[in-house]
Amino acid sequence: MSDFSIRRLDAGSPGFSDDLDRLLAWESVADQQVESTVADILRQVRVRGDAAVIEFTNRFDRRDLKRAEEFCLDTSALHAALERIPASSRDALQAAASRVREYHEHQLQSSWQYQEADGTILGQQITPMERVGIYVPGGKASYPSSVLMNAIPAKVAGVDEIQMVVPAPDGQLNDLVLAAAAIAGVDRVFTIGGAQAVAALAYGTDSIRRVDKIVGPGNIFVASAKRAVFGQVAIDMIAGPSEILVICDGETDPDWIAMDLLSQAEHDEQAQSILLCPDAAFLDAVERSLEKLLKTLPREAIASRSIAERGALVLVQDIQQAIDVSNRIAPEHLEVSVSEPEQYLPRIRHAGAIFLGRYTAEALGDYCAGPNHVLPTSGTARFSSPLGVYDFQKRSSIIYCSEQGADKLGRVASTLARGEGLDAHARSAEFRVSDGDD
Amino acid sequence: MSDFSIRRLDAGSPGFSDDLDRLLAWESVADQQVESTVADILRQVRVRGDAAVIEFTNRFDRRDLKRAEEFCLDTSALHAALERIPASSRDALQAAASRVREYHEHQLQSSWQYQEADGTILGQQITPMERVGIYVPGGKASYPSSVLMNAIPAKVAGVDEIQMVVPAPDGQLNDLVLAAAAIAGVDRVFTIGGAQAVAALAYGTDSIRRVDKIVGPGNIFVASAKRAVFGQVAIDMIAGPSEILVICDGETDPDWIAMDLLSQAEHDEQAQSILLCPDAAFLDAVERSLEKLLKTLPREAIASRSIAERGALVLVQDIQQAIDVSNRIAPEHLEVSVSEPEQYLPRIRHAGAIFLGRYTAEALGDYCAGPNHVLPTSGTARFSSPLGVYDFQKRSSIIYCSEQGADKLGRVASTLARGEGLDAHARSAEFRVSDGDD
Repeated sequence: MSDFSIRRLDAGSPGFSDDLDRLLAWESVADQQVESTVADILRQVRVRGDAAVIEFTNRFDRRDLKRAEEFCLDTSALHAALERIPASSRDALQAAASRVREYHEHQLQSSWQYQEADGTILGQQITPMERVGIYVPGGKASYPSSVLMNAIPAKVAGVDEIQMVVPAPDGQLNDLVLAAAAIAGVDRVFTIGGAQAVAALAYGTDSIRRVDKIVGPGNIFVASAKRAVFGQVAIDMIAGPSEILVICDGETDPDWIAMDLLSQAEHDEQAQSILLCPDAAFLDAVERSLEKLLKTLPREAIASRSIAERGALVLVQDIQQAIDVSNRIAPEHLEVSVSEPEQYLPRIRHAGAIFLGRYTAEALGDYCAGPNHVLPTSGTARFSSPLGVYDFQKRSSIIYCSEQGADKLGRVASTLARGEGLDAHARSAEFRVSDGDD
Repeated sequence: MSDFSIRRLDAGSPGFSDDLDRLLAWESVADQQVESTVADILRQVRVRGDAAVIEFTNRFDRRDLKRAEEFCLDTSALHAALERIPASSRDALQAAASRVREYHEHQLQSSWQYQEADGTILGQQITPMERVGIYVPGGKASYPSSVLMNAIPAKVAGVDEIQMVVPAPDGQLNDLVLAAAAIAGVDRVFTIGGAQAVAALAYGTDSIRRVDKIVGPGNIFVASAKRAVFGQVAIDMIAGPSEILVICDGETDPDWIAMDLLSQAEHDEQAQSILLCPDAAFLDAVERSLEKLLKTLPREAIASRSIAERGALVLVQDIQQAIDVSNRIAPEHLEVSVSEPEQYLPRIRHAGAIFLGRYTAEALGDYCAGPNHVLPTSGTARFSSPLGVYDFQKRSSIIYCSEQGADKLGRVASTLARGEGLDAHARSAEFRVSDGDD
């Protein structure tokens, strides 16, 4: 393919800020047609339960289900898949799962309390959610790593039951996905997908129990259904295309950096790969590497379109300027491929995951380093975090006033409540004040 | 008023489960007309910025703004309000703020790292958001306590800049609200409201900077606008009507319990107050207290309608059954007005805030006990937490592989990536494997 191209930008040029805005511009399309289709599916499943799930599944996934039991898999089916897959895959999945589990155990949060001088106790009780639903896409984008990354944090949090949905178009299922579900400790799997699966998880049916939170990626129907049930249940973020920003000092092998950029680009044509470097000759070298390596990729068509349309090689003045640009982008994946990278950590303000040093390929984080690969995209690292154990725990405030504490606090509350015109609030507090006149 | 009534239920009766479902039934109304009005306002503000904000504000709040500066208040205006209010209010606000601050400091989360035997470092870097917007309703529901509860956690988190919007219908502003903003450390206040204020915070204008998160309650236009910009910025939950569930052993003064129920009921007609008690005679006593106390409330009309339409006195077999019912309801506020209440804490699975003991009136938590009064409503305590410092911090994963670590992890990643058909991922990892053939 001779149509290789990648955008070149210079962070020192006067038009850079506008160039960057144009490069980053991406918005999820809100599709009226999709939204009304999804609204209908949600309504039908809510009212008719399993019958509607069966109908939509037969229609969209070309299946021939007669009864709800036919889309239910129990743990024995998952363990059978685990036995069927090659030993090398089984070992790799188990190694990855064990590292992901260990890392996430560091995220567990505990209840806390403190007592004041007058005996009043304040704190928070932290508890796991009861039931969580994991959406796993079917077909080509059915990734076992995604099962591990979504299920293990919930398991570590102590969630009672994990239900997974994965569509089986034409009845096809991916054994690696089922095996990953077995390893991650998923309790029940339903071979359904689309908005109908989201609806079944959000509202419950005779065979699928209502969950408290739905996580996992999906197509526009799934994303639209998740947005529609948000509030009814919790959801994770609505992910945009994957992105990587690499900051390099020019001393890493350009083939390594090029392949790191391509590992994002091969995901999909909307994926975004950007390199920031103060060395123009190194940018040239990476450009040559990209052109050379692209030709060797099975997913060349996707990757070269992503690189051409959304990629960029950006000349910066120095690493500090690169970090400033990165903070403005708030990238999903940030690779800091420089010597002594740890010195820059305190200056990095917004990023989903930070990969430090020349040896830390972003792909390691996708699979087995330990941290989660579900990360905030499209600049949402400004306000969002990687998926974690904290996403499956929730908090209850604890307030236990002593008689003396209620007396003291009651006076303050009474003044403030009367200032807001809420008399019952004031008097409820005053009842507990020792010389209250109520 | 002789039309006092409150529903009586018996948790031991066969129809109780259905009765409870009917009692709890509440759904936020999705109003097509509101949504399309809001979509237009968002679009106009996005495109025309301050000019659109001025137009909508003049139209909806009956104001006569000519320039954007007229809706901007700086901190000197806030401090002037703090000087104007009565000393008792100032003292009470300052006392409340200081307790809220101290409690929330316990929620601060810190970055963490650990190093593996081969030198690989894993962890999370925790950082504050840069800029947050707080919505404060205008008119009668303009509550200074709400300013403290929304702004202080952001301040404790280390957010760089807090912008507050509060509408000034007919030019009227509440000095207590401005004073609370001064105490809480709000940086800038804009006297605008509605969907146009949400839009200005989400997209930014010439005079209002784009924020990372918008928090705070509002009417249906505000809620609808927040839902629409969700994803573009973070938002807090969309709150439903306030609710209280009281579990009492029958030994607390019935007037105290009745007033606690009324302190929710006076909020609005949709508010919900439920009492669970194993002592039927106590339920009778609370019913008499409710009737008696209602007549003495300035907000009697609202409270009696809330009690009649959404309230309930429920007979339970024992405290354990009361807790089971409570866990099913997942109440916003749970008062456990019994002796030795701490023994029940481990069995309480879902609640926004737990008020233990006879002296802990829920109203203390609304104002000054320390914990936040922004709590999950309508059963969302199954998956949501009180507003807290954690809502204004976010996390970045840290991965720093040693050469040896990259060698080990690269082999696992390579196997898994090839299993998913992602060759560039595999080869990016293999480049860092010592005997990799790339």
